[in-house]
Amino acid sequence: MITLNDVKQAQKRLLSVVMKTPFTKAPKLSVLSGVNIFLKKENLQYTGAFKLRGAFNKISSLPNNLKKIGVIAASAGNHAQGVAYSAQYFNIPAIIVMPESTPLTKINGVKSYGAKVVLKGANYDEAYEYAKELANKNKMNFIHPFTDKEVIAGQGTIALEMLDEIKNLDAVIIPVGGGGLISGMAYVLKKISPHIKIIAISALGAPAMKDSFDNGRVIDSLGVKTIADGIAVRDSSPITYEYIKQMVDIYETVDDEEIASAILFLLEQQKLVVEGAGAVGVAALLHKKIDFSPYKNIGIVLSGGNIDVTMLNLIIEKGLLKSNRKLKLKITLIDKPGSLMELTAILQKASANIVQIGYDRTSIELDYGDADVILGIETKGLEHKNKILKILKETGYNYIQMT
Amino acid sequence: MITLNDVKQAQKRLLSVVMKTPFTKAPKLSVLSGVNIFLKKENLQYTGAFKLRGAFNKISSLPNNLKKIGVIAASAGNHAQGVAYSAQYFNIPAIIVMPESTPLTKINGVKSYGAKVVLKGANYDEAYEYAKELANKNKMNFIHPFTDKEVIAGQGTIALEMLDEIKNLDAVIIPVGGGGLISGMAYVLKKISPHIKIIAISALGAPAMKDSFDNGRVIDSLGVKTIADGIAVRDSSPITYEYIKQMVDIYETVDDEEIASAILFLLEQQKLVVEGAGAVGVAALLHKKIDFSPYKNIGIVLSGGNIDVTMLNLIIEKGLLKSNRKLKLKITLIDKPGSLMELTAILQKASANIVQIGYDRTSIELDYGDADVILGIETKGLEHKNKILKILKETGYNYIQMT
Repeated sequence: MITLNDVKQAQKRLLSVVMKTPFTKAPKLSVLSGVNIFLKKENLQYTGAFKLRGAFNKISSLPNNLKKIGVIAASAGNHAQGVAYSAQYFNIPAIIVMPESTPLTKINGVKSYGAKVVLKGANYDEAYEYAKELANKNKMNFIHPFTDKEVIAGQGTIALEMLDEIKNLDAVIIPVGGGGLISGMAYVLKKISPHIKIIAISALGAPAMKDSFDNGRVIDSLGVKTIADGIAVRDSSPITYEYIKQMVDIYETVDDEEIASAILFLLEQQKLVVEGAGAVGVAALLHKKIDFSPYKNIGIVLSGGNIDVTMLNLIIEKGLLKSNRKLKLKITLIDKPGSLMELTAILQKASANIVQIGYDRTSIELDYGDADVILGIETKGLEHKNKILKILKETGYNYIQMT
Repeated sequence: MITLNDVKQAQKRLLSVVMKTPFTKAPKLSVLSGVNIFLKKENLQYTGAFKLRGAFNKISSLPNNLKKIGVIAASAGNHAQGVAYSAQYFNIPAIIVMPESTPLTKINGVKSYGAKVVLKGANYDEAYEYAKELANKNKMNFIHPFTDKEVIAGQGTIALEMLDEIKNLDAVIIPVGGGGLISGMAYVLKKISPHIKIIAISALGAPAMKDSFDNGRVIDSLGVKTIADGIAVRDSSPITYEYIKQMVDIYETVDDEEIASAILFLLEQQKLVVEGAGAVGVAALLHKKIDFSPYKNIGIVLSGGNIDVTMLNLIIEKGLLKSNRKLKLKITLIDKPGSLMELTAILQKASANIVQIGYDRTSIELDYGDADVILGIETKGLEHKNKILKILKETGYNYIQMT
């Protein structure tokens, strides 16, 4: 296990390199939960995630003769950027092994910090194996994303900042993938303020550590499937499991729908881009996975913000449908001149803005002489949506609501 | 004009109410511009915009007997939320007059702070007139969004925070709509550090104040059209014009495309949701509207983050096309069994992920026996896009790239 001194040492090393990210009250989440909620915004960290802390602390702690040889890591995500950024800082070589399917934006992100990218393997595990091999062959330092004392100590600095900023915290909600973040943070929190409850949240689709916690022994998963790619870890680490077993008080999971709604909430209400892994704490809050009544002041770690905008688009699109701000309808019309005009005139009267349209008169489900129109309509909420549906019904249209 | 004491007084009043928003270095923007760029993140302010400062300071400065009667404002945006939030704080009545077309999300935003919403008028000007009328009739205090000494002093507190945080600033870039923000900030900056250059940015589609500045007299616009609705002000105020005339060193405009690209940049690189008005400074930087060579440390104010997610979706969608991460093609096929399969097999080989598809064989532009396929394809950047186009060409497909 680390010591508090390790973390304080790390804090000194990180002082001029990482951002002391804001830890501020979220008024709407506080009202929703009836508790003071404070968000630790590690999505605003340089490189867009907390991983910079651990990676930098690790690399910084290498003896000079080893450091100058350079570093290797396997990661398609936040760890890769943390290692690359740190290596650039020390002006040492860095090789990042990424799975072959890694999106170009992520490759370019790492390259922009001067690291060499090697694409290898069909998934993370294959990339990881290759990176270990490469590190052995080139005698370069392999930087593990979480089973490393200096990495864990680096992540622990977040807890020091939180305790420094907000007194009287009585619970902290922390995302768990490999467990490096929660190991470092929980150690610090329990050491300094043993009464603080540690609440762990994993993605339902990546439950290895949760299963380990529940069963009292290290359990791996057969596979992972979640939009929270930052915590999509298949195998539990015995090292971080030990921290979690000893220090976590409550452990819950959230599913992809819950994570997506949290991402949208943070986007709209907090003006923050938070990736799936970073949003699990807020997802747990929004979906009442935890009984908040014992607490007064809860901190939630937003661990990172590196989400693909394509995914963001999808989340917004689905979120609009779910929150009644968009309506998708399939309406059957009589296929004759003027039919569409009559329909659009009715919609215009209902202040329904059409944003998407499709027309099909050859579906085999249709009677001859009928046609299907697919409409995407912007709506102002449930009331407006119901008003539109009512008008359509009253004027004799058959529609199916699509989701 | 205000005095420095007015602003310091405002800072005291705001101390426990507004967030001292982060003012931190933006590494990528710094590299891009060759200057240290610091972002003042007022999008993270409570209510999502700086307007809370001016509104709160104004309401707070009302004598108690007037204050308790309540406040009225006209606004569909950030000022509305600032006034409503402040009125709730003082537990006094608030009426916000909004144009009839105001989206439900904005209405609900204001209602969530306990204000009464009155929908009146086809546009802001009509809502404004009605609000003034209502204020006179009910003898309630009308809170103007910018032509008000206490409002201007409130906005000036942002400059105090910036000077406190980063020494050696030599230029500050500030968005201009009505001019309240820049009036308060420029006054403080010039008073304390006269060498700091004040750089004003307006939307090209709302140029009233820029025209006034260029022509040396107050000029109104015929109309406004910009995605930066927070600075879409039609008429110049003689009061804020006076500040701007005296204190602005450089004044530039940015168009909607430039603003959209800045919004996307801030979303992806800074993990921040910034509305159009808040992004004009970064837009000016990204599109090299200003010669940065004379400066070392530039502050940019991100004034707010209240952008509709529907607009955000549109900006992401267009941004993906422009940055070669999405490709839209119209491809003419021979309308026979297997044609589409052959095409999709070719695309699969090129690792092109199809995300959208349409099929039309009845266009009058088509020869009999041909059909058009509209494809949306995810691409990994320019190189990947060109590779796909090359393969299609080599295998004999006719395509048109759609934008």
